[in-house]
Amino acid sequence: MPNATAAMLVIGDEILSGRTRDSNSHHLAQELTAAGIDLREVRFVADDQAAIVEALNALRRAYDHVFTSGGIGPTHDDITADAVAAAFGVHIDVRADAAALLGAHYEKTGRDFNEARKRMARIPDTATLIENPVSVAPGFTIGNVHVMAGVPNVFHAMLAGVLSGLAKGQPLLSRSLRVERGEGDIAGPFGALATEYPDLSMGSYPFVQDGVTGTNLVIRGTDAARLDEAMARLTDLTA
Amino acid sequence: MPNATAAMLVIGDEILSGRTRDSNSHHLAQELTAAGIDLREVRFVADDQAAIVEALNALRRAYDHVFTSGGIGPTHDDITADAVAAAFGVHIDVRADAAALLGAHYEKTGRDFNEARKRMARIPDTATLIENPVSVAPGFTIGNVHVMAGVPNVFHAMLAGVLSGLAKGQPLLSRSLRVERGEGDIAGPFGALATEYPDLSMGSYPFVQDGVTGTNLVIRGTDAARLDEAMARLTDLTA
Repeated sequence: MPNATAAMLVIGDEILSGRTRDSNSHHLAQELTAAGIDLREVRFVADDQAAIVEALNALRRAYDHVFTSGGIGPTHDDITADAVAAAFGVHIDVRADAAALLGAHYEKTGRDFNEARKRMARIPDTATLIENPVSVAPGFTIGNVHVMAGVPNVFHAMLAGVLSGLAKGQPLLSRSLRVERGEGDIAGPFGALATEYPDLSMGSYPFVQDGVTGTNLVIRGTDAARLDEAMARLTDLTA
Repeated sequence: MPNATAAMLVIGDEILSGRTRDSNSHHLAQELTAAGIDLREVRFVADDQAAIVEALNALRRAYDHVFTSGGIGPTHDDITADAVAAAFGVHIDVRADAAALLGAHYEKTGRDFNEARKRMARIPDTATLIENPVSVAPGFTIGNVHVMAGVPNVFHAMLAGVLSGLAKGQPLLSRSLRVERGEGDIAGPFGALATEYPDLSMGSYPFVQDGVTGTNLVIRGTDAARLDEAMARLTDLTA
């Protein structure tokens, strides 16, 4: 059975303005590769309902899973939950289960569970909550969409919870060979090898390091024996 | 006149597999903000012609400019130039102007201008070349699409050249206020202030640093006087 497919939607003006550098997409890419789920596309959009709805509807129809990051906090620019509800055409309001979690947390910490914080309990009908072991305010899963926080340590913790509940595929393995030759010198034989192994993905990544020009040649696939065989061939080719 | 809009397309399996962390989108975001061009969307796709064509056609029709990164090297997985030609429905082959640049470079450095390296001279008809002051192999502009290398220092150099030829808008300015209060404590008055200044964009970004919980409040806009006025109000509100 082929691996499940996935996409990510990163939401936030702060990413598109260059104020903040997104790190969640890189973390997700690594986690999905290890879990055998194929990340096929990532999109970044602004805190804009129309943009979120359009991207989310395109992605959730095209891929098995969609992971979102950002826009579920207490402030006026946190519009992700409402946008997701709009994309699915379902009702959204402060929900009792999420409000209970947050209310207990604020009571314990002696802070006011005010109107702004109640925004974080806005959860679309039919969604199930994603636990937030870092700062309580939950994410949620609706259909094939997993809605998570943008703050990296919270995103990581929520993602770990979500992934523990998803079916795993075959992890994508990779082997890498560093050669001190220009990419253009090795491209011909490397391309011929790639044609012989259509079940593997081969990529080359040039570098200049301490004045040395070279190329990292990477072979990826799910079958370790095939990878080792192709890697042995590549080692001979570049010797 | 409103600022021009832009999108970015990052191309490469190595990004989606988590092997490489993209940095070009963050660099582009900062450069466009300074140039007064509004970056509205970023997409990452794989080295897959259908995925590149679909994303490129969607983005070039929706925004004034599209900037791409990756996939213009000499190896078999470098398919961006051909995919861009397919998206525009124009012919592509090794082009004399690009081949002359590369041929002169390899002659000077004593390396073979082989078939693989000639791939880097594949330029779609009607495109104009983008200079590569780092490693010669050019990018190109076709229509409103600027096709650049993925290697960060080459991307930076090509982008500087492209931006020098584009009309500038009003740079997006920002002011930031750090408060040692939870996001939920300040969200109410901050949201009310945002409603009073619909011409400005306001965002809040929580942090936990050395055990201190706080929030960075950011106001963005193109009118420095309006920003200063809103910032003075915000400072009063949070005092």
